Amino acid sequence: MAKAWTDYLGKNKDRFLNEMLDLLRIPSVSAKSEHKADMQKCAELVKQRLLDAGCDKAEVMPTSGHPAVYGEKIVVPSKPTVLVYGHYDVQPPEPLELWHSGPFEPVIKDGRVYARGSADDKGQFFMHVKALETMVRTKTMSTNIKFLIEGEEEVGSPNLGKFVEEHKDLLRADVILISDSAMLSMETPSLDIGVRGLSYIEVEVTGPNRDLHSGTYGGAVANPITVLAKMIADCHDKKNHITIPGFYDDVAMPTKEEKRLLKKAPFDEQAYKNELGVKELWGEKGFTTNERIGIRPTLEVNGIWGGYQGEGAKTVLPSKATAKISARLVPNQSSKKITELLLNYFRSVAPPSVTVKAFEHHGGEPYLTPIDSKGYQAASKAVKKTFGKNPIPVRGGGSIPICSILEKELGVKIIFMGFGLDSDNLHSPNEKYNIENYYKGIETIPYFHKYFAEG
Amino acid sequence: MAKAWTDYLGKNKDRFLNEMLDLLRIPSVSAKSEHKADMQKCAELVKQRLLDAGCDKAEVMPTSGHPAVYGEKIVVPSKPTVLVYGHYDVQPPEPLELWHSGPFEPVIKDGRVYARGSADDKGQFFMHVKALETMVRTKTMSTNIKFLIEGEEEVGSPNLGKFVEEHKDLLRADVILISDSAMLSMETPSLDIGVRGLSYIEVEVTGPNRDLHSGTYGGAVANPITVLAKMIADCHDKKNHITIPGFYDDVAMPTKEEKRLLKKAPFDEQAYKNELGVKELWGEKGFTTNERIGIRPTLEVNGIWGGYQGEGAKTVLPSKATAKISARLVPNQSSKKITELLLNYFRSVAPPSVTVKAFEHHGGEPYLTPIDSKGYQAASKAVKKTFGKNPIPVRGGGSIPICSILEKELGVKIIFMGFGLDSDNLHSPNEKYNIENYYKGIETIPYFHKYFAEG
Repeated sequence: MAKAWTDYLGKNKDRFLNEMLDLLRIPSVSAKSEHKADMQKCAELVKQRLLDAGCDKAEVMPTSGHPAVYGEKIVVPSKPTVLVYGHYDVQPPEPLELWHSGPFEPVIKDGRVYARGSADDKGQFFMHVKALETMVRTKTMSTNIKFLIEGEEEVGSPNLGKFVEEHKDLLRADVILISDSAMLSMETPSLDIGVRGLSYIEVEVTGPNRDLHSGTYGGAVANPITVLAKMIADCHDKKNHITIPGFYDDVAMPTKEEKRLLKKAPFDEQAYKNELGVKELWGEKGFTTNERIGIRPTLEVNGIWGGYQGEGAKTVLPSKATAKISARLVPNQSSKKITELLLNYFRSVAPPSVTVKAFEHHGGEPYLTPIDSKGYQAASKAVKKTFGKNPIPVRGGGSIPICSILEKELGVKIIFMGFGLDSDNLHSPNEKYNIENYYKGIETIPYFHKYFAEG
Repeated sequence: MAKAWTDYLGKNKDRFLNEMLDLLRIPSVSAKSEHKADMQKCAELVKQRLLDAGCDKAEVMPTSGHPAVYGEKIVVPSKPTVLVYGHYDVQPPEPLELWHSGPFEPVIKDGRVYARGSADDKGQFFMHVKALETMVRTKTMSTNIKFLIEGEEEVGSPNLGKFVEEHKDLLRADVILISDSAMLSMETPSLDIGVRGLSYIEVEVTGPNRDLHSGTYGGAVANPITVLAKMIADCHDKKNHITIPGFYDDVAMPTKEEKRLLKKAPFDEQAYKNELGVKELWGEKGFTTNERIGIRPTLEVNGIWGGYQGEGAKTVLPSKATAKISARLVPNQSSKKITELLLNYFRSVAPPSVTVKAFEHHGGEPYLTPIDSKGYQAASKAVKKTFGKNPIPVRGGGSIPICSILEKELGVKIIFMGFGLDSDNLHSPNEKYNIENYYKGIETIPYFHKYFAEG
């Protein structure tokens, strides 16, 4: 079995890579309406690849937003079924000027594929398509496999909940497997045991009804940039705790056992700082860096703009200033509740000299998976098999909004088996995915199915 | 004399207006290098108009930046000489989407000319060109007249100081006359007795060396937007006093007499708020609105940007955040000193988790003119003649950076005789200049020359 897999992968390596590049060439940016046709095109290609890989059926299915792609290979109905979830949409590529090559013109350099979506998530969900092909062609399928590859993960999966609810029977499975996260390193493999939740809002502060001359009116009329800056500054206290009343109310502290495991994850602060180019780290007092990005909720400003941003100087007191702000949530915070807290905060702290419009972009609940489950154990064994080491369980800092809904609707656990690296520049310019990790994933995935079927 | 002027203006009204529109069609934005050719084209047109109006000579003169235009009409060397200063450059027109018509495609509507530069300052300096023509054609010149129309006022006149120093003899005059400011209203004429100084800087905060995934790194790495917001928020205390150490050290309080005169300026707070569309005004505690925009220094954020500013949501922790920040200064503050204070403030308050680059865009000293001078008295009489009321002396909130240098180099006083209105949308979308004010200016200016020669 193992030799058949390795042989098949060895013979088809270049094609497996080229097919991934084809996916990366489609600018499937879900956040931007101008890419609607690209979304459809990308969904069609995913469907075709699923059929090519050996699915009995595959289809592009409409949702109220961008379409989802469903595919399945049912070997024997009595065998366990694994539902692979992934997403073909990507984050906006901006700022474009910081890319060394076009975000949708994949370039291979030093063993890495540079392109938007290479690690998040096209390159990662496609490993499962190629693993399916490998098992089908070598006649070694140990489970039934279903695919749900959606097109709205990067905008918070606003329509997938309804879709899952409406297609419960179609999607029914014994476990859900997701490769949309990272591992610590090839030398220190790890498995995420959770993702953080998300509350993402936008705040627009309006002062005067038009841009004003900053000499004629400056000092007499509230400047919306100054007001917004103050509201943002007041979100954290001197210890970098978040000050919004009630924000921490439902935060669950990790168990002693989890804290012990968390500490096993190696962390070299100096290397971390060097890699990011910062002299000092930053964060909530009383917690380590790994805790800050894993078990603690956070609040980040993702974007801000207002007034003159061009070359040179313009003496204007602007009419508006806007910020995009998001919180990462941990168990047992509720995205809905925190979004309300955030919206209320920005609406209520604004002085009467401005008006504030605040609205939600999207949200998602935090999710934790039990490490004693059959699925986690199968993933852990699979990683041990191909990496030669037991993976460390860690909490991921990112969010996959649909997780809690998938578990609720389908009644099964979610297993995270990511092969990316934190240094893959997810959501950033020059996103990349190491070709070695791509192949290692394709090699590891069949073992998951084998061990899960045996487990 | 008066009848000759009115008759000439009456016969040439339409041409006077059309010639102003020709100037407005040239996008002479000094801040943007892409407009270099437009700057030259505009300077050439100004020169031609000066010659057409009756100047003995006019030329486009190089500076280290955009060229200046000089022109003169010397009647009898023994007569007093008035130097008219103005500027043919304009502010950037952005945000373009808020203009009801193209900023460089002047539109006449409800008796107003809508275009960038209509009031600031093309429409205003051009009144002097047309007043010259009127006096030359009606053979009623009572003074010699020189023109200095520069191309870098909106970027702080960085090269004009040197130019003035090098051409002292050419520019020698008995008074300097500037129409680059506003009056309270046609019913309540006023004359500015001063302009505020300016210190304009840009601050760039860099956190990590690239944009990061806000889930993977959020909470562990300083967010440059949050840091910049805090630095901006800390610039004002709860009473809206500026907190930067030393900022107020040299501020001169106005004399009792000046305070008394300031109070004469009518101010209808409700009308002011309605016109700006704000529920409450804002400003330094302990001062009235007129004081805040006249006799007190201020600090405004003119622009800010960082992170994702597009449609929808992007979960990014950005590498950089930037702001353009300027202070308006009053006597006896020094622009150089305040710029240093501002730069030092932003450099020194930054936490070690980020790096800050701060630099100066430009600056200018505040300027006050004595109301008992011959020039002010001539302007006051001229306004009284055509408006039927004595003008109220007020302090202007804006800045004309070259003022203090002109007085120092040429040793004469500057008189501000502006015919614009605060509601002209200077530096804002839909800048306009009322045609009535334009003609009223052309009508009033010859009286200034007459009274100054007699005075």
